[in-house]
Amino acid sequence: MTTPGASAAQHTGNNELLLTPGPLTTSLGVKQAMVRDWGSRDKAFIALNARIRRRLVAIAGGGDDFVCVPVQGSGTFAVEATIGTLMPRDGRLLVLVNGAYGERIMKIAKVAGRSAVALSSPEDRVPDLAALDALLANDRAISHVAVVHCETTSGILNPLADIARTVARHGSSLIVDAMSAFGAIPIDVRALPCDAVVASSNKCLEGVPGVGYAVIRRSVLERCVGNAHALTLDLHDQWRAMEVYGQWRFTPPTHVLAAFDRALDEHEAESGVAGRGTRYESNRRILVEGMRALGFVTLLPDAIQAPIIVTFRMPRDPRFVFETFYDRLAAQGYVIYPGKLTVAPSFRIGCIGQVHGEDLRGFIEVVREVLGAMGVVDAAPLPEAAE
Amino acid sequence: MTTPGASAAQHTGNNELLLTPGPLTTSLGVKQAMVRDWGSRDKAFIALNARIRRRLVAIAGGGDDFVCVPVQGSGTFAVEATIGTLMPRDGRLLVLVNGAYGERIMKIAKVAGRSAVALSSPEDRVPDLAALDALLANDRAISHVAVVHCETTSGILNPLADIARTVARHGSSLIVDAMSAFGAIPIDVRALPCDAVVASSNKCLEGVPGVGYAVIRRSVLERCVGNAHALTLDLHDQWRAMEVYGQWRFTPPTHVLAAFDRALDEHEAESGVAGRGTRYESNRRILVEGMRALGFVTLLPDAIQAPIIVTFRMPRDPRFVFETFYDRLAAQGYVIYPGKLTVAPSFRIGCIGQVHGEDLRGFIEVVREVLGAMGVVDAAPLPEAAE
Repeated sequence: MTTPGASAAQHTGNNELLLTPGPLTTSLGVKQAMVRDWGSRDKAFIALNARIRRRLVAIAGGGDDFVCVPVQGSGTFAVEATIGTLMPRDGRLLVLVNGAYGERIMKIAKVAGRSAVALSSPEDRVPDLAALDALLANDRAISHVAVVHCETTSGILNPLADIARTVARHGSSLIVDAMSAFGAIPIDVRALPCDAVVASSNKCLEGVPGVGYAVIRRSVLERCVGNAHALTLDLHDQWRAMEVYGQWRFTPPTHVLAAFDRALDEHEAESGVAGRGTRYESNRRILVEGMRALGFVTLLPDAIQAPIIVTFRMPRDPRFVFETFYDRLAAQGYVIYPGKLTVAPSFRIGCIGQVHGEDLRGFIEVVREVLGAMGVVDAAPLPEAAE
Repeated sequence: MTTPGASAAQHTGNNELLLTPGPLTTSLGVKQAMVRDWGSRDKAFIALNARIRRRLVAIAGGGDDFVCVPVQGSGTFAVEATIGTLMPRDGRLLVLVNGAYGERIMKIAKVAGRSAVALSSPEDRVPDLAALDALLANDRAISHVAVVHCETTSGILNPLADIARTVARHGSSLIVDAMSAFGAIPIDVRALPCDAVVASSNKCLEGVPGVGYAVIRRSVLERCVGNAHALTLDLHDQWRAMEVYGQWRFTPPTHVLAAFDRALDEHEAESGVAGRGTRYESNRRILVEGMRALGFVTLLPDAIQAPIIVTFRMPRDPRFVFETFYDRLAAQGYVIYPGKLTVAPSFRIGCIGQVHGEDLRGFIEVVREVLGAMGVVDAAPLPEAAE
């Protein structure tokens, strides 16, 4: 047995490495920042909260035109809060769907009682820009468009700049779910343009889960009084309270926010989005090259693959039983992620979090051993056409 | 200078003691439980989550008739989720209001589009049971009644058993916001009876903030498909997913839940609700006797004072400036809580969290010193009639 968890254990304090889209592996420093209780109405915490909000606007390139509104809960809470707050009750939403997270936005709109239409593409294809253009030209009621920057379902990177240009040409308001990309893949909300970008503490910024946020155009948010469909998800109300008192309306997850503040320090120390993105890109390359050497095939061509999470097709060898593969990797300290796709039987391995080149090289060695123990000689999948 | 933070620092790892209604002081063990990353779809985490849910049902006395549905966010998220999930869209809610948290439930109902009526009493009075009885008799459309068990606004303990009996007599469904009481003040959902009790990780169970939950009558929840006004706040959907897969629908705050699991261990080790309640009651007595000896006067008579948080009237001496008092206590390691009341100028001091008799005796000494330094000889307030 190699010592798989060992390198990770040194910098993360974990016995295992989470190779998932989140909750993911965080640094020991981030976790240790939680070993203190904070009074949420105390000055020190108010300053910490303001610092986090300022830094998130800066990462989004928002300048003075944008504000950051955090909200308790997971990233999906922030997505639902943003949709509900920004859209008037009689608005109409177009969702670009090529995975589970786009589908989820459709579901949010339905429960929130907002009119919505999907422009769907298969999970391994980017949205059709010509179809988007035509839809916006023909359906003038569409007030808002929502797109997922990196669809974690497959790991595909959607062409945000092209989408934003098309949406802007038709005068609709763009909302970007950048959950699994924010902090590692550059986004410039003013240049795009878009009205809101939504993400969470727990993806590429490498905090712990428990808080989401939206970076929203101030002039848009100012007009959103009374839109929201739920009190706790009202980002206009949340924003006003934070601007006036510096405090959260309802108890914030203080420990999670202390960890997030520390995670943002570490993000800056790694040269911000550029540095984080470079490490993840290197992780992706080591992972994909190593897995391909064992016969695995990626679902996506490299050109549309984000350096966040990689989908691999299931090997055709009947001796490859995914549950056994998962359990054996877990026993050696590596937690991977089952697939969620409809286009092909598959599983996923994340590149993000406190994961470095040596961790992934160690992981590839363990995959090789586990395949050997399972008697799998070649991890190649069925040919595509046969599926 | 005494060494006020010192005793607290030993068992909490903090430099300060939070004498607030939350976020409050937690044990070092609870915080250290967060120094590990968990995969939210991994077996170990699924087991942890199931264990938490089971124990919360047991604390509520729910037996097999009740289920626990946790939800990401603060306690208010759980209250809004419970109201939205349990009430059909054409239901009508009666809220017993004698403080800010009752008012908040009214606001939730309004934003969620549910018809609601308040039965209001002053913040220092319990609800009028005869008025409740008459209201339920006259307004037959009232399908649900909501009440706050301990109103943190004043610290008043509402007479839950009497209220529940009255509500049951009229056949309405009772929802109890037990946020700041659950785990220290006994509640027995079957005996009361009520259909749901709502609380959070971060009050008397002494976890960290970031998750709320409701213990709901199974036969009621089963009928709640499609009621919810928000996807993330749909407790029926959340419950079904957890029953079927053992997993959360959306990323849970894994570290917060690990801390909560540890907090529940410590709650059991302290003999559960009885032991926790006894310590808090002793805290309250030491606090109130000590403050009274300095001239302070409590807002509430002892008979309706919960052992959770105590409201003290502002001293009339003009040398008593609350901000100075607050800052000097904070500088010595004690964080107290400003008032939120309309009936009288006041401030509040919490009795809950990892706070023990010696901590409060040390606190009283520091209050005495701070008053001396401020030149305040007598902390007595204006006579009540003069306000």
